[in-house]
Amino acid sequence: MSFSVTILGCSAALPTANRFPSAQLVSIRNRRYLVDCGEGAQMQLCRYGFSALQVNHVFISHLHGDHMFGLFGLISTMSMMGRRSPLHIYAPCGMQQILDDHLRYFGEGVSYSVEVHELCCERQSIILEDKHITVSTFPLYHRVPTCGFLFCEKTPPRNIFKEAIAKYSLPLCAIIAIKNGSDYTLPDGEVIPNEQLTYQPYAPRTYAYCSDTIACREVALAVQGADLLYHEATFADDMRDFAINRGHATARQAAQLARDAGVKRLIIGHFSSRYRSVDALVAEAQQVFPNTCAAKDGATFFLNQDLPFAD
Amino acid sequence: MSFSVTILGCSAALPTANRFPSAQLVSIRNRRYLVDCGEGAQMQLCRYGFSALQVNHVFISHLHGDHMFGLFGLISTMSMMGRRSPLHIYAPCGMQQILDDHLRYFGEGVSYSVEVHELCCERQSIILEDKHITVSTFPLYHRVPTCGFLFCEKTPPRNIFKEAIAKYSLPLCAIIAIKNGSDYTLPDGEVIPNEQLTYQPYAPRTYAYCSDTIACREVALAVQGADLLYHEATFADDMRDFAINRGHATARQAAQLARDAGVKRLIIGHFSSRYRSVDALVAEAQQVFPNTCAAKDGATFFLNQDLPFAD
Repeated sequence: MSFSVTILGCSAALPTANRFPSAQLVSIRNRRYLVDCGEGAQMQLCRYGFSALQVNHVFISHLHGDHMFGLFGLISTMSMMGRRSPLHIYAPCGMQQILDDHLRYFGEGVSYSVEVHELCCERQSIILEDKHITVSTFPLYHRVPTCGFLFCEKTPPRNIFKEAIAKYSLPLCAIIAIKNGSDYTLPDGEVIPNEQLTYQPYAPRTYAYCSDTIACREVALAVQGADLLYHEATFADDMRDFAINRGHATARQAAQLARDAGVKRLIIGHFSSRYRSVDALVAEAQQVFPNTCAAKDGATFFLNQDLPFAD
Repeated sequence: MSFSVTILGCSAALPTANRFPSAQLVSIRNRRYLVDCGEGAQMQLCRYGFSALQVNHVFISHLHGDHMFGLFGLISTMSMMGRRSPLHIYAPCGMQQILDDHLRYFGEGVSYSVEVHELCCERQSIILEDKHITVSTFPLYHRVPTCGFLFCEKTPPRNIFKEAIAKYSLPLCAIIAIKNGSDYTLPDGEVIPNEQLTYQPYAPRTYAYCSDTIACREVALAVQGADLLYHEATFADDMRDFAINRGHATARQAAQLARDAGVKRLIIGHFSSRYRSVDALVAEAQQVFPNTCAAKDGATFFLNQDLPFAD
């Protein structure tokens, strides 16, 4: 039930000595999802103790180099490590052609198929779903078509209170029916509603990824109530006109969006190389949204599970 | 008159937590030459205190990803840093098409021209020359066409011994003529040969780069007498059959080549990810050629100037 985000790179377009281009690893129940894949993402995976082979799904927010130039090396490396299963890459339109051209030169001997899923960046939609989670995309507002990503745990099946089993001497067939949502009728005809017999074992968690984008109402609506939000804060607020002009956000704007969206925690990242230290950006954001911290290469942020959770 | 080599990456195809893919910076008289450009080369430049803008010439040994995937990010970064002068890229045939395709997707707004010089990998030739150095390419023997590179200082103009000026009361016009190679004729008709009047101020230095290749006689001939040789040693000698089959060399073979070529110092690199420590490879090489050391990301090797040098 672990759910965490490890920052592999949090620089804006120009990397620095300490900040690699955008990439992060979302880990949910031992599955690893790579979100953006800037240059050096494969080395950062290695440095922070992950294997490239753990990644089956890569989500690319937009087709700017600092968010995707790491794909080329990653594809080769996975092949040399003996990958056989398909690699799924979700990205805005254009990725298929880029990778077709790339694989024409460098695809000889690639031992698995690279499956590109081109995304519409103009509407919210579920792009991946399994038993436990959904991954959705939603529009961001940058200079080129850009997708945000939302990793949502599904609502878990309800558990029965142990006390109820004893209290009502529930037989096995009744327990199964109640777990599937039924009420329970006592021998005297009294109906015990399901919600008195069961509880939600934990609150499903949500992580929202927003880079690169201006901070606007539409984005706030899309990430509403997220447990953890990563939002770009390329500049400090004294550069907000420049930021908007470049399709970026300031730290203050990211914090305002986090507050307006009612998220629980905010990570700011995608820092311009002009900021050697990002302390001032964090301070600026915390004035508006105290529960803000800065992305840092190698840092892992855990989404805590509210346990036990009874509604 | 400085001449040094800084290792930016010395892994074989699979990078590790401590070794980036192949790239190094050759610095001669404050000019910087990038040799190979594996993924992350731009971040390594930054980490080790160099600016990408210092590089005007990039030499790519062959078109395998681990030697060139860093070019894409570097080209973008140079543009964002405001580069205006052309960037010259020397590489085997095929690079022009690869970069044309790349720039079709990612070249919008690139603020300078990328000049590709495609190389013939089958013969030795001078590919760059200025007042102080020549850069030559020579054939390596890998699975695809591969070029080695030789950075040679030119023989410096000879200096006149101060004692000779006094002894023969040389007038200015004679000094200029002698510096240009003339002998000097005394009033009594005796001719003093130029080599008695002048000396070579320093021995011109040579750096040879060989990655990837099998270690063979042809390569030894090409790097004959180099002051410093970087030679790949992907494997230890217990894997020599596998190495040759993959177009690679072992540490022992690299050392034998260094000895046979009469070079002064050997750096081994391009280490397979199977070697967490490369101590055993260095020890194996040193048994044959004691003046061997291991490449390490961030290490700088200086080519000392034999000063003063009188022949």
